[in-house]
Amino acid sequence: MKLATYRNGSRDGRLLVVSRDLQRAVDAAAFAPTMQYAIEHWDAVEAGLQGLYAALNAAECPGAFVFEPRQCLSPLPRTHQYVDASAFLNHGHIMEQAYDLNVKKTPGIPVLVQRQSDDFWGPCDDYPLVEADNGDFEGEFAVIVDDTPMASTPEVCAGKIRLVMILNDVSMRAHLFRELQMGFGFINAKPASVFGPVAVTPDELGEGWAADGRIHLDMQVSRNGQWFGQPNGREMDWSFGELLARLALNRNLRAGTILGTGTVSNQAARTVGSACLAEKRALEKIETGESVTPFLKIGDRLRFEVFGADGRSIFGAVDHAFVPFGQQ
Amino acid sequence: MKLATYRNGSRDGRLLVVSRDLQRAVDAAAFAPTMQYAIEHWDAVEAGLQGLYAALNAAECPGAFVFEPRQCLSPLPRTHQYVDASAFLNHGHIMEQAYDLNVKKTPGIPVLVQRQSDDFWGPCDDYPLVEADNGDFEGEFAVIVDDTPMASTPEVCAGKIRLVMILNDVSMRAHLFRELQMGFGFINAKPASVFGPVAVTPDELGEGWAADGRIHLDMQVSRNGQWFGQPNGREMDWSFGELLARLALNRNLRAGTILGTGTVSNQAARTVGSACLAEKRALEKIETGESVTPFLKIGDRLRFEVFGADGRSIFGAVDHAFVPFGQQ
Repeated sequence: MKLATYRNGSRDGRLLVVSRDLQRAVDAAAFAPTMQYAIEHWDAVEAGLQGLYAALNAAECPGAFVFEPRQCLSPLPRTHQYVDASAFLNHGHIMEQAYDLNVKKTPGIPVLVQRQSDDFWGPCDDYPLVEADNGDFEGEFAVIVDDTPMASTPEVCAGKIRLVMILNDVSMRAHLFRELQMGFGFINAKPASVFGPVAVTPDELGEGWAADGRIHLDMQVSRNGQWFGQPNGREMDWSFGELLARLALNRNLRAGTILGTGTVSNQAARTVGSACLAEKRALEKIETGESVTPFLKIGDRLRFEVFGADGRSIFGAVDHAFVPFGQQ
Repeated sequence: MKLATYRNGSRDGRLLVVSRDLQRAVDAAAFAPTMQYAIEHWDAVEAGLQGLYAALNAAECPGAFVFEPRQCLSPLPRTHQYVDASAFLNHGHIMEQAYDLNVKKTPGIPVLVQRQSDDFWGPCDDYPLVEADNGDFEGEFAVIVDDTPMASTPEVCAGKIRLVMILNDVSMRAHLFRELQMGFGFINAKPASVFGPVAVTPDELGEGWAADGRIHLDMQVSRNGQWFGQPNGREMDWSFGELLARLALNRNLRAGTILGTGTVSNQAARTVGSACLAEKRALEKIETGESVTPFLKIGDRLRFEVFGADGRSIFGAVDHAFVPFGQQ
């Protein structure tokens, strides 16, 4: 099942069911007015939403209309918790090899970063850069979970995953290095994240939603229409269940919590490419002593998309341009 | 005006207006069913809520009932953003003097820590400790802000403050030192925060809401009925407006954002006491080489309260006991 949230002037938008081919949509208000409502009442509304989805895919759905990703807010336009992991250790290894980051990780414990969840931007919205010289992107997968009790096991946590998304975790590198040295996490380094237009139930990923609790699909990233990278999610060093269990060690996770994977990164980064500029710049620095790929520029257009085994886009695309602050 | 949220089985509870003396309350549903609704529609609902408050204080309010803090959820039981500052540099100086924390601050830039906001605990709820050997408390002030645009000035940000609260920022010190060294902020170090029962408009603080954008009132902290400390909020090294402006540097803050001050700390800590165990333990270590004050124990009861110039409690008290996980 695929779900999206359309702009309607309210903070939480209105929930849509979207067809598998992303061509058509229908209002889901008969079952759930918003995505937050759907997640909070999942057991009660899932069957109804699945019924709409089946009818929509069979072209037997009254009220269906053409689906337009530009009218989308984030699938969850805001939520009560957003945590981003750095679950591909390969990315950290490359960064630490290129720069003296002084990061003291404890083996076996994943990096998790508490993030703001009050103001996600739509998948195709122009994105304002307050500072135009150090912007970066990070292509990631993310999951939305239902209520998850404190101290749950990885298995219990995995069973609480309701939906999967993709995102661009926009990052400001000048602040990131400074804030990482300070130790208290990211504030100015991480402006609003941008999620893909459609959140999907895990079954939509087919065999891409693998038994090892990872997503075995490529994150396709392009910059200004040029291929940038296509790292695969299978190399994540912890499963989603393991990441969630670490987060839930001594706190409840409430319905709507979003967990991101961190930038997707593969050991074969030199051939499959990267999902962020910093990693590409770090590889350049390691190989030649000099980073040549520039950070984001005003006018840059980015696209993040993931295709299933049938070659079809699963989540739609994050497809957005960077504009000067005040002109968005 | 004083507002609280009563338990009613829903995630967001029901909004109450509470009398100035904290003795009586009345349902606010005619104007705003929940605190989140009130903050999002402040200009439309404030006058109505103030009218209820005036009638309640004059004992002319039909439907008024005895106010019972034990029935309270957090004033905002959940919200979409919670950031905690470390705005009393004196606390950091003491900690850095006692321990080799390797914190690299940039002069002039305040420490801000992104925190989870999906599951605040009620002011008198029993609080479960998953680990019973390294728990700590931090007595703090906090503000709730309305929508605040990206790149707002400190003056604009200060004007967006709608309500003031107190809280106990429960902390797990074993994780805190580890996570601080790692650099990505706090996850296991910071389980759920506990806010005082009543959120108040700034005018309720009288001259305690000072022209320098700080709270000139003592945070009274007791442990098991024994005085622990009463540091004053006036020594905050940044105003609330300055802290909010740094947070809003490159992102919008959406209605309901909570900003905490970090543990209140004074240069005269040896006489006025501290608002957290770690600071007291650090002072002991600096003076004698050994920390003797123990971390939280199961069964410990904490109380945090702030009194106005008239000697009356402004926010009611955080008054809670620590229990073994699974028995709350």
